[in-house]
Amino acid sequence: MAKPSNVKGTRDFLPQQMTKRSYIFETIKKIFLKYGYQCIETPSLEKTETLMGKYGEEGDKLIFKVLNNGDYLKGLDLTSSESSITSKISSRALRYDLTVPFARFVTQHRDSLSFPFKRYQIQPVWRADKPQKGRYREFYQCDADVVGSDSLLYEIEQIQIFNEVLSSLGISHTIHINNRKILAGIAEVVGAQDKILDITIALDKLDKIGEEGVKNEWTKRGLSKEIINKLSPLFNTFDDWGEVMTQIKEMLATSEIGLKGIDELEYVFNMTNTEALSLGNLKFNITLARGLNYYTGAIFEVTTDMIKIGSICGGGRYDDLTAMFGMKGTSGVGISFGADRIYDVMEEVNGWPENLEKGVEVFFLNLGNEELKTCLDFQADLRSKGVRCDTYPAAVKMKRQMKYANDTNAQYVAIIGSNEFETKSIKVKNMLSGEEVIYSWESFVVKFEKVLRS
Amino acid sequence: MAKPSNVKGTRDFLPQQMTKRSYIFETIKKIFLKYGYQCIETPSLEKTETLMGKYGEEGDKLIFKVLNNGDYLKGLDLTSSESSITSKISSRALRYDLTVPFARFVTQHRDSLSFPFKRYQIQPVWRADKPQKGRYREFYQCDADVVGSDSLLYEIEQIQIFNEVLSSLGISHTIHINNRKILAGIAEVVGAQDKILDITIALDKLDKIGEEGVKNEWTKRGLSKEIINKLSPLFNTFDDWGEVMTQIKEMLATSEIGLKGIDELEYVFNMTNTEALSLGNLKFNITLARGLNYYTGAIFEVTTDMIKIGSICGGGRYDDLTAMFGMKGTSGVGISFGADRIYDVMEEVNGWPENLEKGVEVFFLNLGNEELKTCLDFQADLRSKGVRCDTYPAAVKMKRQMKYANDTNAQYVAIIGSNEFETKSIKVKNMLSGEEVIYSWESFVVKFEKVLRS
Repeated sequence: MAKPSNVKGTRDFLPQQMTKRSYIFETIKKIFLKYGYQCIETPSLEKTETLMGKYGEEGDKLIFKVLNNGDYLKGLDLTSSESSITSKISSRALRYDLTVPFARFVTQHRDSLSFPFKRYQIQPVWRADKPQKGRYREFYQCDADVVGSDSLLYEIEQIQIFNEVLSSLGISHTIHINNRKILAGIAEVVGAQDKILDITIALDKLDKIGEEGVKNEWTKRGLSKEIINKLSPLFNTFDDWGEVMTQIKEMLATSEIGLKGIDELEYVFNMTNTEALSLGNLKFNITLARGLNYYTGAIFEVTTDMIKIGSICGGGRYDDLTAMFGMKGTSGVGISFGADRIYDVMEEVNGWPENLEKGVEVFFLNLGNEELKTCLDFQADLRSKGVRCDTYPAAVKMKRQMKYANDTNAQYVAIIGSNEFETKSIKVKNMLSGEEVIYSWESFVVKFEKVLRS
Repeated sequence: MAKPSNVKGTRDFLPQQMTKRSYIFETIKKIFLKYGYQCIETPSLEKTETLMGKYGEEGDKLIFKVLNNGDYLKGLDLTSSESSITSKISSRALRYDLTVPFARFVTQHRDSLSFPFKRYQIQPVWRADKPQKGRYREFYQCDADVVGSDSLLYEIEQIQIFNEVLSSLGISHTIHINNRKILAGIAEVVGAQDKILDITIALDKLDKIGEEGVKNEWTKRGLSKEIINKLSPLFNTFDDWGEVMTQIKEMLATSEIGLKGIDELEYVFNMTNTEALSLGNLKFNITLARGLNYYTGAIFEVTTDMIKIGSICGGGRYDDLTAMFGMKGTSGVGISFGADRIYDVMEEVNGWPENLEKGVEVFFLNLGNEELKTCLDFQADLRSKGVRCDTYPAAVKMKRQMKYANDTNAQYVAIIGSNEFETKSIKVKNMLSGEEVIYSWESFVVKFEKVLRS
């Protein structure tokens, strides 16, 4: 028999990993709730037509399609093209992100929702990407979005959420912000409005390929030398926010949309109490584009310098996401936490809180039938008080039972051997300090519960 | 544009539904943890070969297969059979239950686990069943299993878990128990050992098709009249546990495996403190078989008479589940909660706790720029103390803002209008009682936090 194994690019999570993952998810969830976001869930399976065409040509290829059930080949013209066959034999697909299903959800349930609708969603998504370190075919997204309002208060709120989640987890970080309207303004003033995607896609790679690389890619993408020259000021670096603003306002003086973008950016900057960002700092980054064509206002990306890793969060404003399903004029803004990357950061810097991996609070050894029966009574009593307990199922050697208690992170071990049984007592060992206390059966539950809850 | 819709047999969950679902999941999870079960997760995608052949021929058909990516048709012989093509174009599939992936998990990670390994797992599964009321194509299973011990203490523990979870949820229930060894003993003593599946599959339908129906199906399945006569005592009903045992012991007197089954059953019955089962009762049910061939000892099924619905939980002992992946001699016992059916029961009898649907604790109205700025400061202060807050994003009519606060279940509404702004005060309305209290800005946060936390 072949050794069993996982599908490539997917992972099993063992208890100690689950404890850490839950810690991240619970931290995020608690903060989403605190900011008034409510939880929803959508199915893993969507109609293929709901997803296709929403993520660009590359994205379409990375969507996992699910084979129709029953006689799916019946009556099929097998001489037609692969893509035609695919669309006929797979009417359902696995969701690729949480954003498009959310847009479908809002459109479909609009009459049951109160707008602005603030929702969070923490669920897995699937992508047929080539697996590599930190990139999986099945991974969780943690998204918070508001739809039905164009108020910039939400951009400010979401910056606070980035900061609060990551600071709670002890991750120092930079929140990069840009505005799609500024990018549109730039394309306009250099006379390349139709080339905005070409300009931004290349510019977004500045970190990876450098100034010369970006310029080469612009040339390849058909931008003239003249336009590239006009774009050169984008590569200037400034430490001073005022200086940047002066320069960019000058550049965009003739572009209405560009100036609108600057207004929005300045409002968000001024209203964000940057001193209140504990482990974070907010930075205007004009090269930020995130390649996502649906952004229309603010664009966010969050990085950390704690370890070498790509962005750990992202987001932005989209003015018409639900239009793809026929619901127009619904502005929204959303952010997404990359839980897997955050996990990798925490793991690398060992940023977990102490005592995160907790087994049961009390583990009873099994030292013979009579003794066991007494332990089970105590166990039932403690469990009824909410104490997490367990008992070894067989009266094997004590050493083996102690090892099990240790391996499973039990906090205390409770022992009734023949001595204790005779004197109606119970010995309790603190597995962290090694300290032992002996209780009488009469007082054990009451006294020990106090110790546990103190 | 076509109206967007869900894949048939799948569901969106709105915030109010999520709150209720979370209540069920959190109740189950807390109790699993209390009994020493640790959380794991496995991927949604498994290799098709891992799943196929594990659920019978019918089951195989209901597994959702995922289409290979890339040029999956390339080099494929399209004249071969559909099943041959299927296996070549879909190397991955969606998990059908949590049990088989768990068996793979245990086999694969055995060196990292401590046995007996007690795990719980709450994740969705997918089945291409015909959707109908209460039956979905994507639904959650909530499983708790112990592997690596044949101790009957775990059967007893799992009965307690059934009882504690369902009693916590306020669901009165009957835990039906049988033992596969008793069924094997019966087949043996009537001289139909090779027909055990035929006997039990038909017997399991007694509730639905009645005594005559079962006998007809036995005839169809090739059981002789003589054997069917010998099986007749199974249809006797007894109210008294002692009487049942006398009769069944007599019937199985010559079957070693049958008597072993009775021993196990009696041990579990005697050790289960039936008075401690709050809303549950334990009942021996010889017709219970659950059609699952891998059970080897105890078989569980839980029903409720609160509404007409099938079983709401199930489970049993399996002696060699991991053998399918080459790991032998690992006995296990597990239970599964049907969260969707439990939800339906709770919904039907309106069994939810009061005040389950909670929005933010404080909702600030937006009554102008200056006033807003003060509200945002209070909001930031309260959020930093862990209070769930929100603010309306635009200074629209007060009535509309109040409606929003009400629709989203805000507990208090905080108001700074021009009057309050002048007198540096803030009005807070309890949305449940309608009571209004006015605080000075100075004392608001401290005093209000006390009210909230009292």
